[in-house]
Amino acid sequence: MIKNIYATGILQYIPFLYVIWSDDLLTVSEVEVVTKAIEQDDELTKKDKIVLMDWLNQKKPPTNSELKLWKQFISSSKIKLIESETYPLTSFCQKLVASPTSKSTLNESLKHIEINLGIQPNHYNHLFDVEVVHEKTSHYYDSKEIDAILKGKHHKEIDAFRKCLSDSIFKWDIQRDKKKFREKVLNQVKFLAEKGYGAMAYPKEYGGTGNMDVYASIFENLIYVDGSLTVKFGVQFGLFGGSVQKLGTKKHHDKYLSDTGKATLLGCFAMTETGHGSNVKGIKTTATYNKKTDTITIHTPGKNDNKEYIGNALHSTMATVFAQLIVDGKNEGVHAILVPIRDENHQLMKGVTIEDNGYKLGLNGVDNGKIWFNQVQVPRAHLLNKYGDIKNDGSYHSEIKNPNKRFFTMLGTLVGGRICVAKGAISGSKMSLAIAIKHALKRRQFNDSVKIQEDLLMDYPSHQLRLTPAIASSYVYHVTMDHIMKLYGDETITDKRKIETQAAGLKAVITNFANETIQECREACGGKGYLIENRIANLKGDVDIFTTFEGDNTVLLQLAAKGILSEFKSEFNSAGFLSVLRVLGTQLSDKIDTFNPMYTHKVDKEHLYNPNFHRHAFSYRTRRLTYTLAMRIRAYIKKGVPAYQAFLKVQTHLLALGKAYSIELAHETFINFTETISDEKHKLLFQKLGTLYALHEIRNDAQWYLEQGYIGGTKSKAIRQRVERLCTELRPHIEVLVDGFGIPEHCLTAPIAN
Amino acid sequence: MIKNIYATGILQYIPFLYVIWSDDLLTVSEVEVVTKAIEQDDELTKKDKIVLMDWLNQKKPPTNSELKLWKQFISSSKIKLIESETYPLTSFCQKLVASPTSKSTLNESLKHIEINLGIQPNHYNHLFDVEVVHEKTSHYYDSKEIDAILKGKHHKEIDAFRKCLSDSIFKWDIQRDKKKFREKVLNQVKFLAEKGYGAMAYPKEYGGTGNMDVYASIFENLIYVDGSLTVKFGVQFGLFGGSVQKLGTKKHHDKYLSDTGKATLLGCFAMTETGHGSNVKGIKTTATYNKKTDTITIHTPGKNDNKEYIGNALHSTMATVFAQLIVDGKNEGVHAILVPIRDENHQLMKGVTIEDNGYKLGLNGVDNGKIWFNQVQVPRAHLLNKYGDIKNDGSYHSEIKNPNKRFFTMLGTLVGGRICVAKGAISGSKMSLAIAIKHALKRRQFNDSVKIQEDLLMDYPSHQLRLTPAIASSYVYHVTMDHIMKLYGDETITDKRKIETQAAGLKAVITNFANETIQECREACGGKGYLIENRIANLKGDVDIFTTFEGDNTVLLQLAAKGILSEFKSEFNSAGFLSVLRVLGTQLSDKIDTFNPMYTHKVDKEHLYNPNFHRHAFSYRTRRLTYTLAMRIRAYIKKGVPAYQAFLKVQTHLLALGKAYSIELAHETFINFTETISDEKHKLLFQKLGTLYALHEIRNDAQWYLEQGYIGGTKSKAIRQRVERLCTELRPHIEVLVDGFGIPEHCLTAPIAN
Repeated sequence: MIKNIYATGILQYIPFLYVIWSDDLLTVSEVEVVTKAIEQDDELTKKDKIVLMDWLNQKKPPTNSELKLWKQFISSSKIKLIESETYPLTSFCQKLVASPTSKSTLNESLKHIEINLGIQPNHYNHLFDVEVVHEKTSHYYDSKEIDAILKGKHHKEIDAFRKCLSDSIFKWDIQRDKKKFREKVLNQVKFLAEKGYGAMAYPKEYGGTGNMDVYASIFENLIYVDGSLTVKFGVQFGLFGGSVQKLGTKKHHDKYLSDTGKATLLGCFAMTETGHGSNVKGIKTTATYNKKTDTITIHTPGKNDNKEYIGNALHSTMATVFAQLIVDGKNEGVHAILVPIRDENHQLMKGVTIEDNGYKLGLNGVDNGKIWFNQVQVPRAHLLNKYGDIKNDGSYHSEIKNPNKRFFTMLGTLVGGRICVAKGAISGSKMSLAIAIKHALKRRQFNDSVKIQEDLLMDYPSHQLRLTPAIASSYVYHVTMDHIMKLYGDETITDKRKIETQAAGLKAVITNFANETIQECREACGGKGYLIENRIANLKGDVDIFTTFEGDNTVLLQLAAKGILSEFKSEFNSAGFLSVLRVLGTQLSDKIDTFNPMYTHKVDKEHLYNPNFHRHAFSYRTRRLTYTLAMRIRAYIKKGVPAYQAFLKVQTHLLALGKAYSIELAHETFINFTETISDEKHKLLFQKLGTLYALHEIRNDAQWYLEQGYIGGTKSKAIRQRVERLCTELRPHIEVLVDGFGIPEHCLTAPIAN
Repeated sequence: MIKNIYATGILQYIPFLYVIWSDDLLTVSEVEVVTKAIEQDDELTKKDKIVLMDWLNQKKPPTNSELKLWKQFISSSKIKLIESETYPLTSFCQKLVASPTSKSTLNESLKHIEINLGIQPNHYNHLFDVEVVHEKTSHYYDSKEIDAILKGKHHKEIDAFRKCLSDSIFKWDIQRDKKKFREKVLNQVKFLAEKGYGAMAYPKEYGGTGNMDVYASIFENLIYVDGSLTVKFGVQFGLFGGSVQKLGTKKHHDKYLSDTGKATLLGCFAMTETGHGSNVKGIKTTATYNKKTDTITIHTPGKNDNKEYIGNALHSTMATVFAQLIVDGKNEGVHAILVPIRDENHQLMKGVTIEDNGYKLGLNGVDNGKIWFNQVQVPRAHLLNKYGDIKNDGSYHSEIKNPNKRFFTMLGTLVGGRICVAKGAISGSKMSLAIAIKHALKRRQFNDSVKIQEDLLMDYPSHQLRLTPAIASSYVYHVTMDHIMKLYGDETITDKRKIETQAAGLKAVITNFANETIQECREACGGKGYLIENRIANLKGDVDIFTTFEGDNTVLLQLAAKGILSEFKSEFNSAGFLSVLRVLGTQLSDKIDTFNPMYTHKVDKEHLYNPNFHRHAFSYRTRRLTYTLAMRIRAYIKKGVPAYQAFLKVQTHLLALGKAYSIELAHETFINFTETISDEKHKLLFQKLGTLYALHEIRNDAQWYLEQGYIGGTKSKAIRQRVERLCTELRPHIEVLVDGFGIPEHCLTAPIAN
């Protein structure tokens, strides 16, 4: 028997060696970890060390019969492994060799190996035949602490709001009839308005706190109650109220903002037209100024020029209508005008026609409608005149002379909505992930003939791989959008164009991510995920349209890419476009110089986990895509292809750049954020999430990195393996991670999650 | 002016040269096409030819000022290009140089270039400033002919059935209330039963035709009416009826089959249990034989051992219940027993409890329920006894001695359902693609300042790329599943294990594909796609669960992979597992030998479009994954890791293999099928679809191919470009392609598709 051959010192290492070799956990840098630990273990004799070192020789690994002998030794011990211990494998090893006289402190060298190799129960659960005492998750990390890190400085307001959501008015139930559902949601909106949550982002004098950050946090937490409520809330206070606040002037604020915040004035935001979904500049509704009557006439010229999909259309008495403003026969471009659409008896105003959009895939608690205007007259004062006005003498005036710039300045003020949509989408992912994870920690499936219990779903590698990277991404995107919201609300930054570019790209990437994640969660819960009572089905239906509204994702990614291009252009403006390309080219060739075989084939853990590697990879991708894109466009233009058409030819390239830029930005923002976490333990956890996010994204684009020769085949494989391994390493903490999202318990009503 | 410099012969070529150079359409093999055409053009002088050849020199391409000159020449001509002509660019060129005396036949050389380079309006639409006469699609191909190719030999039956669907009972409307919806669907099922469609697959003596192929075609066409109807139809006639037909014997057929086909006997299929979703072998319901009373007692032992998600549970009077059959104290494994669950007054039988599953994400017209049995007694004759029986003396008897084999034989008879689900999923993709394409051919968006009309959505490259490969895949999968269904129904093939493996993998791959496609179509239609009236929303909700029922996709892919492994094992059975590996290794190293740089960097059109390249790539991937999988499992087992646990460790590898195998199979089946198409024109079209499918799939797995060194970076890029180009080439035929699916007009009710 092995026990008689080796000393206690060596025996202690046997379970580690068995796990390491039978699960192929060794790479060169990891051998070093073990080697170093053995060297520093004072309890081992010199001879012991030689024996152990010999077993670490990768060129001459232990034979299979040796491995089997080790396994037999472990199995015959009958010692239980307890997963909830801080160092489960080290503790196990100690018990394995324990005698009545042995000391109770754990071997430091073994602890060192266990932590630094990232060995987790998942690595040996499937190797040992000995009984494992199952704890669903470890309590090494603290979900409350994690939640606090995510909430940041507004934690008090957020906690108070979450508590408010326990009111019975927010109790979730299945709603099938749109009329009843809409009434329920309307009442919820009014309830929130009464509590002061609607006016949150408005100035103090109109009942608010001027705090857009907190408004956005409210918005994102509302998803935990219901998607329809979130959207209706956003339409009333963010879109309608926001248009009054940001496009109007004091006279509008004084007259409408307080009532809007209290929801005693309900309004809608009439921008999109049936015929012109994404092309706001090309809308057809006209607003013609009549000097004689000093009024503006709102008119829908054609059948398909109606306002489409307008939320709150059936409950509102007022609409912010976007139309081509025509003054003295001249089209001054798109402007916003307040148009009363219903009277005090809720009857439609003369000339206004509204039709219900009917049932949708989701969000049936939101009253979307189509609106037509037939020569509807409003006073001149109804023009929201912050950026363009009709003066008393009937002439048009604007401080921004360039009509294009004026248009984008007006739209720019509404970017907050886009940020909120992204934040809402993240909440949708968080909620579905929390439900799927909690289900996977209860549900058992299959077994072998030996085990009594079937395995937990969560212990399947494919299940870990389908859910864990999405958890990491949810953390990364949460932090990123919080940051973007801060920049957006920062009044010291006057030129917001860069933030608009960033918000456009991130909104697209994040809402796509959210839809994929919710779908993955639905499937991960099997038939249970398909039942409405388990909430994922509604999240799926509700969040789906987030990819389309507040800017279609395909359009937004192109917008982002064009923003990146013009940013580079303006950076080097004096030098001209050609110089930009030259500079970009230099930067890239600098980076290409680092593509020596050492780099493209570097697969050790230190390198693969190093945020600088990730940063470099993301930055290289963005730069390279920008450069080749600029080159392609330039070539077309030089051949005489018009710019508009050249951009069409490179459309898929634009999409790739928009996405790459957003991922780089999210990663960078998150990494910088982790540096600010004071608690070392949780800082490391966040950094691990950042690593998983980065490697997972590099892996998603591995085809491109391989094509470029930026990584070699071996490195690409190593990255894939590291992603799987990180998922396994996070397995014991998976429930803490979803609890860290801070979803209020009273909102998490899915039976499968309880 | 250029017109004065060059002869008519040369001028004719100018638009081609402009398109070719300004859109970078040239590769080496394509230069050859043009060179050859020029050489064979008798109208050109020797000098003309030298001039033209000079312009084709890739090392010294025409200068930008030359290109601009050409463009000017084209623009100033004011000649309209008519897309609906068979050779639009050639016709254009002829008109460009036409004089009153010129002949009207087109230049053969130009025709040759236009066809062989696959130049399509999309290649020059964005280059020309001249007006293009827009036809939405070309009529070069015939959608009726395409539909006929897809329908195959049962076209008469399929046409008759599609016509039957025009009956007002199938009129689609929005259903929100599950009770009403279920009644509607039940009436539709009864209507179909009366017409003889339910019994289609049963033998003649029970009202059928014994034709499983036609049954499957009916099933797949039903999706065009409604998903709930499809599933309820499948449960009644396929699952319940199928279990009586295939697991029962003559006494059961005589007693129940006719009534089942007529839907005067409604039945359900009670297999799945709450606690054991995918693990049928581990179900807990017991069926205990009592010798004294000669009865079988059906019993649900625990709270979570109820039958779950049973379709038709609220309307049925009979259930096929799967339970552990216990005879004389011995568990003989899972068997099926007919259990009456309601009496003639539709009251629950004693001991039977049924609960409504409630609202779901989709399929709310299907009455899913949970069923508990509390010591319910049925006569011994109710045992469906084809594969295992209780004899008169009370002893158990089966021809299949191995209980495992017996279990899989029973399950195997039900594989038809799995094939039908895949077929239904394909119909879901077809329908959503047809709607999205028809919408994209009407919807215009954005424009430049020059054009009067905004561009059609369908003319955006990103739109083509998101929809066209899915159309190609729908064709490939349609043909594949028709083929699998034929094999399944072929009574000369007695060992169906291989077909079961194939059906498992294909069901998973196809239902995943369908969900992704429907989602893509929803987004491609923007907000319009979100409205229930436009049908995609319901398809999304209904088809979603196809990834889970009739076998969870994750489980099925593993099943397929294990099938592939054991197939190899049995192929070399006498030689043993090691020899298998050795043979596999040899085959692979043979293939690796062909990875010379010539091959990995070959990017010419002939090679990339050659089905043998695709075949080779798919086959290499499957073989390589099989080999490395077998090696990994072997290594684990040699180290003493139990087989069950070794399989868990390689789970993601199993999934990849299951998928790779299915794609290879689908491609091979489709390529073989195209050889049987007699009409040359349409044969070429189908082959082009096969090429797009293949390149798109290789591109999806390009990371892996690059890692293996099977393709180089340049080739990977070339494949990506070819996919985009093929999408563009198919653009003029896109409506014909979706019309070719043969979706009845009376079913395609989406307002955006009309």
